[in-house]
Amino acid sequence: MLNNEMIKILKIKYPIIQAPMAGGITTSELVSAVSNSGGLGMIGAGYMTPLQMRDQIRKVKTLTSNHFGINLFVPNKFAIRQDTIQSANQLLNPFREQLNLPPKDSIDIPDFHHVYETFIEQIKVAMEENVPVCSFTFGIPPAKVVSELKTANTILIGTATTVREAVENEKAGMDMVIIQGSEAGGHRGNFIDDKNRSLVGSMSLIPQAADNVRIPVIAAGGIMDGRGLLASICLGAKGIQMGTAFLTCIESGAQPIHKDIITNSTEEDTVLTRSFSGKWARGIKNTFITCMKNKEWNLPDFPIQNTLTQDIRKNAVSKNNKEFMSLWCGQSPRLAKQQSTKILIQSIMAEAEKIKSTM
Amino acid sequence: MLNNEMIKILKIKYPIIQAPMAGGITTSELVSAVSNSGGLGMIGAGYMTPLQMRDQIRKVKTLTSNHFGINLFVPNKFAIRQDTIQSANQLLNPFREQLNLPPKDSIDIPDFHHVYETFIEQIKVAMEENVPVCSFTFGIPPAKVVSELKTANTILIGTATTVREAVENEKAGMDMVIIQGSEAGGHRGNFIDDKNRSLVGSMSLIPQAADNVRIPVIAAGGIMDGRGLLASICLGAKGIQMGTAFLTCIESGAQPIHKDIITNSTEEDTVLTRSFSGKWARGIKNTFITCMKNKEWNLPDFPIQNTLTQDIRKNAVSKNNKEFMSLWCGQSPRLAKQQSTKILIQSIMAEAEKIKSTM
Repeated sequence: MLNNEMIKILKIKYPIIQAPMAGGITTSELVSAVSNSGGLGMIGAGYMTPLQMRDQIRKVKTLTSNHFGINLFVPNKFAIRQDTIQSANQLLNPFREQLNLPPKDSIDIPDFHHVYETFIEQIKVAMEENVPVCSFTFGIPPAKVVSELKTANTILIGTATTVREAVENEKAGMDMVIIQGSEAGGHRGNFIDDKNRSLVGSMSLIPQAADNVRIPVIAAGGIMDGRGLLASICLGAKGIQMGTAFLTCIESGAQPIHKDIITNSTEEDTVLTRSFSGKWARGIKNTFITCMKNKEWNLPDFPIQNTLTQDIRKNAVSKNNKEFMSLWCGQSPRLAKQQSTKILIQSIMAEAEKIKSTM
Repeated sequence: MLNNEMIKILKIKYPIIQAPMAGGITTSELVSAVSNSGGLGMIGAGYMTPLQMRDQIRKVKTLTSNHFGINLFVPNKFAIRQDTIQSANQLLNPFREQLNLPPKDSIDIPDFHHVYETFIEQIKVAMEENVPVCSFTFGIPPAKVVSELKTANTILIGTATTVREAVENEKAGMDMVIIQGSEAGGHRGNFIDDKNRSLVGSMSLIPQAADNVRIPVIAAGGIMDGRGLLASICLGAKGIQMGTAFLTCIESGAQPIHKDIITNSTEEDTVLTRSFSGKWARGIKNTFITCMKNKEWNLPDFPIQNTLTQDIRKNAVSKNNKEFMSLWCGQSPRLAKQQSTKILIQSIMAEAEKIKSTM
């Protein structure tokens, strides 16, 4: 069962995908180490310019000859309203003051048309560079994009948080689909359903999704070890995607303090917030999240709020101030270790084999 | 792995416990059918008088010679404040009007002392009747109660929604502990941690709990079939407890409309509410939950709110009106079937064996 169509389609040795965490975590070292260790390394390219993307793709190619992939954010329509931006800035200015940053009133933000153009440029780069695998979050790309990528033989992976979203991904021609359980760290991938409807635990979501699509289902959310891999397979998944487990690896570009906080946290320490980006995401609770809690329903949508909080997050990183960083993390931080990617993958496979042998 | 210390301690054939759903669902027919089919049937005695409890225990004994158990609610301190009751009644009176029920202003509610006395009476009955297994929700009984039950050789099972709660159960002398994931239907069993901290998905919660206690861990929440059983075992559990899967069985005392709604629902249809009882619980969204949504933080605690809504729920049942019933359900309704208990248990074990053989 560990040797199935998912690994055949992806041409990898083990059914393990490294989640494409955006924002500098998926260094070329991490991506290539995953692919060199038998998994599928993924570049989290959501926030990258097409140029940055091309640079990293080329870098990864020099470090591994195995399959790897990139992940892109499918742009969702958003409206820029100066009054909403102004009131969001009013909420953020006290934090800026605390961090000795200048206050802000308005902000220059690219409009939806521009964001969409960038997405199309990213797709072009992926095809020009012959990236073997392309995964998507926050939606399904337009049919034209899907068919172009298919013509280029790119393997396509969608993301779903409910059965309906999984079915839509299959209908649109995705080759497989990530099933994101409520345990998952970072951004919720929901695109049809609101946050509440999409907060389904993996124990429920995986089998219900597997029953309703024919493409391989890949489990994501809270999986950290051989136990989680084998459990996902039992539930009907063909493989797993892990974020937090790779985030704390030595090769990951996450801030050292982010790694330390995760490896010292418990399952009770994460919360869902939309204060950092305008989209719901799971991370370790800190001062920023707590202070914004009662205001988060009125914030601008993604990616506006994300752009607005950028100066705060960057400053916090430069000062190693954990209270104002986005400390994305799934619900299994007790199982996170700071170790090499190779050791992580090897121990997962060894543990899974050991459990299998005792069943 | 399916033949482990959990089934040895409980003297059952299969590692399956029927969740002790209170409020008439766990009929003697259901409890005995589970025990006669190789699982552990449980009487949900939380809302029963000691007399009702004794009657049902005796009835179950006539229907099975196998082990079975009862579940009790550990009383949590609550204060009766007439102003809170009055304002809660003001919220409920429009529903009463809609259902042609008389409005209410105040209500006679037993105080904490009385509730606690009833709990002690329930414990006495369990011991006098030599009930083999006793499980607890909403907390851990006082040390004196635990030691009396242990002297009587009662097997004790606690409930936990976080690792900390699991550890407390072990320290208090529980023989095993139910680990309730966020997928679970019905009442949240949290007693240390608030609802938000305790909403941890099973994929994360089971392995983290199993790593931190030595007593057997029993997975609960969203488990419906052989896939869920085997996944739970892979994650470190020794067995499973299922609620929704048994609720829709033929022998269950749940309202036929409740069963029908579950078997026609999806993973998107459940929500958490404290509007029915004052404690957070997961059920199918309906008019009552939706209307009370923005007011639920200010309601009286359990069991006060539960007593207040009793006339509404009873009337809704008598009229087969699904909009005002508490339709408890976990996050896997797509996997629910209306079938006999025996078929359910047999198909779970057959499916688990089949999956094992292909691993």
